[in-house]
Amino acid sequence: MSILVVGSVAFDTVETPHGKVENVVAGAATYFALAASYFTDVRVVGVVGEDFGPEQEALFTGRGIDIRGIEHAPGKSFHWTGSYTGSMNEAKTLDTQLNVFAEFEPKIPKEYADSDYLFLANIDPKLQVKVRKQLPNVKMVCGDTMNYWIADHREALLEVLKELDVLLINDGEARMLSGVHNIVHAAEAIIAMGPKSLVIKHGEHGATAFFGENSFAGSHGLSRPFRAPTLPLSELVDPTGAGDSFAGGFYGYIASQPELTPAVFRRALFYGGVMGSFACEKFGTDRTAKLTREEIEERFRVFKEISHLEHDAA
Amino acid sequence: MSILVVGSVAFDTVETPHGKVENVVAGAATYFALAASYFTDVRVVGVVGEDFGPEQEALFTGRGIDIRGIEHAPGKSFHWTGSYTGSMNEAKTLDTQLNVFAEFEPKIPKEYADSDYLFLANIDPKLQVKVRKQLPNVKMVCGDTMNYWIADHREALLEVLKELDVLLINDGEARMLSGVHNIVHAAEAIIAMGPKSLVIKHGEHGATAFFGENSFAGSHGLSRPFRAPTLPLSELVDPTGAGDSFAGGFYGYIASQPELTPAVFRRALFYGGVMGSFACEKFGTDRTAKLTREEIEERFRVFKEISHLEHDAA
Repeated sequence: MSILVVGSVAFDTVETPHGKVENVVAGAATYFALAASYFTDVRVVGVVGEDFGPEQEALFTGRGIDIRGIEHAPGKSFHWTGSYTGSMNEAKTLDTQLNVFAEFEPKIPKEYADSDYLFLANIDPKLQVKVRKQLPNVKMVCGDTMNYWIADHREALLEVLKELDVLLINDGEARMLSGVHNIVHAAEAIIAMGPKSLVIKHGEHGATAFFGENSFAGSHGLSRPFRAPTLPLSELVDPTGAGDSFAGGFYGYIASQPELTPAVFRRALFYGGVMGSFACEKFGTDRTAKLTREEIEERFRVFKEISHLEHDAA
Repeated sequence: MSILVVGSVAFDTVETPHGKVENVVAGAATYFALAASYFTDVRVVGVVGEDFGPEQEALFTGRGIDIRGIEHAPGKSFHWTGSYTGSMNEAKTLDTQLNVFAEFEPKIPKEYADSDYLFLANIDPKLQVKVRKQLPNVKMVCGDTMNYWIADHREALLEVLKELDVLLINDGEARMLSGVHNIVHAAEAIIAMGPKSLVIKHGEHGATAFFGENSFAGSHGLSRPFRAPTLPLSELVDPTGAGDSFAGGFYGYIASQPELTPAVFRRALFYGGVMGSFACEKFGTDRTAKLTREEIEERFRVFKEISHLEHDAA
């Protein structure tokens, strides 16, 4: 089944204690699409400038990603410059050049109208709502957001939340959105805003899923949260895109399965962690773009081994 | 098999957003002993003052804990006053009255000489070394420490580390002890100091175990870390003693098993999390002292359910 993702396609300049890269293809939709492409068909809606040519397109088409929905506009592509130091849990933004992204008005190509799964990556919630309205018949809608929209565009964001089957955010964003510190109560408050399920990402500590009464899980009698691990990484080269890659692995796996069951959701969280862990191992999309499904399955087995009481290694 | 724990037996005055308790029996050895008592025989070595009478003793003897090693000294017992606010991840110490604990010289009663498992709770590493030397024939030695000893008593602490089968510390302590931020490299550096295995506790995010080549796990061909979850708690009333209760559940379960295998170690980490989660649900030892083994087994099942891909709830 096909996923349509709408979000940023950008160039990044990133510095970490492991080095620096300049003008590498990045953006939330890029990381998401690459990660999801190992599981299912992916279509991208975004906007790029004149600096985005055949070389950049090949990153997507090489993974079989449909980029007919990436609009080419006059001017330059979105460019983000950031650096990581210390714990590397959060980037310091040094410069943001929105460029063609400032006037982005997502248009859904008619070839994308039959998309089954919609992912609203981290963009202006007003645009997320518009995209959602253009695709009223999708089977499932997942979304992401960030502190900026939570703080200053709350009303539009609340509109988006009502439409979501799953919201994926991190601890800090969950606390900011709910105004509650305790993560269980924060999750309850957010689910009351609309998302049927909630995935809270804890960075190096994995993720926790919470299920609302109206979620698919409710009909399976499932109400407890679920905890997914991450792999302790000895080489955290560049965490940029880890959250988007997590979302791509998570949602890509769900879209590849015939039915959303609690077991599928749990495995999807593991695949999310797997893809997030790969993303951190090299700069930019270098690792995520060049994986094999075998490498992904092997790491999935490692995730299981490091978190399950019983396994083959006894 | 019996565990001997040496550490503080104290009175605490604690304030959290959920209320305040004054002069409740606490201390690392107390929390550890109560948690471990559900799994195996426990013996305590510590010191108390004249304020510690039959009522306080009953907390231990009611759980079948052997307190012949608790020395009664003239004066008052150790008294700690602390408060928790905000994230409740760390206590703010408002007052520390060492009292009889300032002159504590652990003496091992001869009835304790046949103890199989030794737990060196968080006390002056000089005393930890002395206790270890009095019990040269134990099967296994585990220990805990804290930032104070890491910062200002490093030499004595390094002596202790050489003796340990397992060291249990938290993220911040691991980074401080190793001088390394990346948790995998921090673990490697600490294991190089002596502990055969290392359990790093992540508070609300569970714990990760790392195994050295010389650990029991090495001989089982196990080298990967293991991640244990915690239960997301909606009522975090008082986190005091959660780490010591974790250690008690972890080590108590190991001591109850005929042999230390990777599977036993993994289950022990889950029991650690289980006992740590109970400790936070009420003030002081109120929850930990009044559990049943059935409640513990039920929560163990919940830990498995929230972390395992396949289980009965499908």
